[in-house]
Amino acid sequence: MEEIRIRRLTYENKMDSYSLDDYIRIVKEFHGSLAPGLLIGGFMVDLALKNLPKGEFFDAISETKTCLPDAVQILTPCTVGNSWLKVLDFSRFAISLYDKSTGEGIRVYIDPSKIEKWPEIKNWFYKLKTKKEQNYRLLIDQIKEAGAGLCSMKKIRIKPELLGGHAHGSRIANCERCGEAFKIKDSPLCPACRGGDPYGVQ
Amino acid sequence: MEEIRIRRLTYENKMDSYSLDDYIRIVKEFHGSLAPGLLIGGFMVDLALKNLPKGEFFDAISETKTCLPDAVQILTPCTVGNSWLKVLDFSRFAISLYDKSTGEGIRVYIDPSKIEKWPEIKNWFYKLKTKKEQNYRLLIDQIKEAGAGLCSMKKIRIKPELLGGHAHGSRIANCERCGEAFKIKDSPLCPACRGGDPYGVQ
Repeated sequence: MEEIRIRRLTYENKMDSYSLDDYIRIVKEFHGSLAPGLLIGGFMVDLALKNLPKGEFFDAISETKTCLPDAVQILTPCTVGNSWLKVLDFSRFAISLYDKSTGEGIRVYIDPSKIEKWPEIKNWFYKLKTKKEQNYRLLIDQIKEAGAGLCSMKKIRIKPELLGGHAHGSRIANCERCGEAFKIKDSPLCPACRGGDPYGVQ
Repeated sequence: MEEIRIRRLTYENKMDSYSLDDYIRIVKEFHGSLAPGLLIGGFMVDLALKNLPKGEFFDAISETKTCLPDAVQILTPCTVGNSWLKVLDFSRFAISLYDKSTGEGIRVYIDPSKIEKWPEIKNWFYKLKTKKEQNYRLLIDQIKEAGAGLCSMKKIRIKPELLGGHAHGSRIANCERCGEAFKIKDSPLCPACRGGDPYGVQ
């Protein structure tokens, strides 16, 4: 069997790759376990990178909070903390990589029409079986065999108003209630003090 | 000068640490550069870990999208993709680590009253100078010197309704418009097709 390799993009904007075993090892270190979604995610990022238009800097979108953000963070320079990866909570299993300046790029998604021939993947993806009922070994084997064959892709262009990223010129002030610094816009209270605080009374 | 070390929590729930130099190297690899916020973030996670209550599994909150999520992802088992790290867009420079089951934990935040004696940190934190006007070397030196001395912490307890995490029993169906799978609730259309799609017309 031909050795499977997973492309990755470095900070120097160079294309490189991991062996599948190395990718799996890094996934376990970073994500804690080889989640099926991260294995598929590796193939998805690989497919996107293979088809990326020429460009200088790339941003990424994950259309789900689950698993896929970590595949992007492991295989590209885009992380949540450096703001090159945006996580949109659409619950669609899809990623996009696009040129920061033009918005042109590639979207890769799990294609429902291609999943039928992989019953254990279908069971997992559509939650037709509980985690206990799933056969993890078989699932992983089917994902390895299917690879990017589960996915389709299309060219995308991000809406211009969503490009640009950083809000320059924002003003920082201390919140009138909690006293901590935040990006002040319309209210003298920070978003947490306006009602989003996750902390209960001690 | 005593060697500075940065605590980290492993997947085996063991406390370990990096030398400051190793932490900085890993930050550059993961985040792309030594952003000042990630250097402070290292000290913040360190302080939180030092004061963590006993517990089996910990979740994390970052109260900003900027920089801090990466400090948490580098130093703890909590990542965005494994859902142990939640990013709340409050623009407050604060993190919390808490026991998944009880919600008890520690919140660490930059304390405005403690920043006064570090002028270059204040210039950066409150955006009193543009990035060009800032003295990056001086800023980094002041952060290294200040360390967790910039921060305060308090015990927190996460609201019980926010604990638990994964929505079990959610149903997956194909969206009636785009045809892709999503977690179906009230609408037969996925959130992207209901109006959040970031993609323009090709």
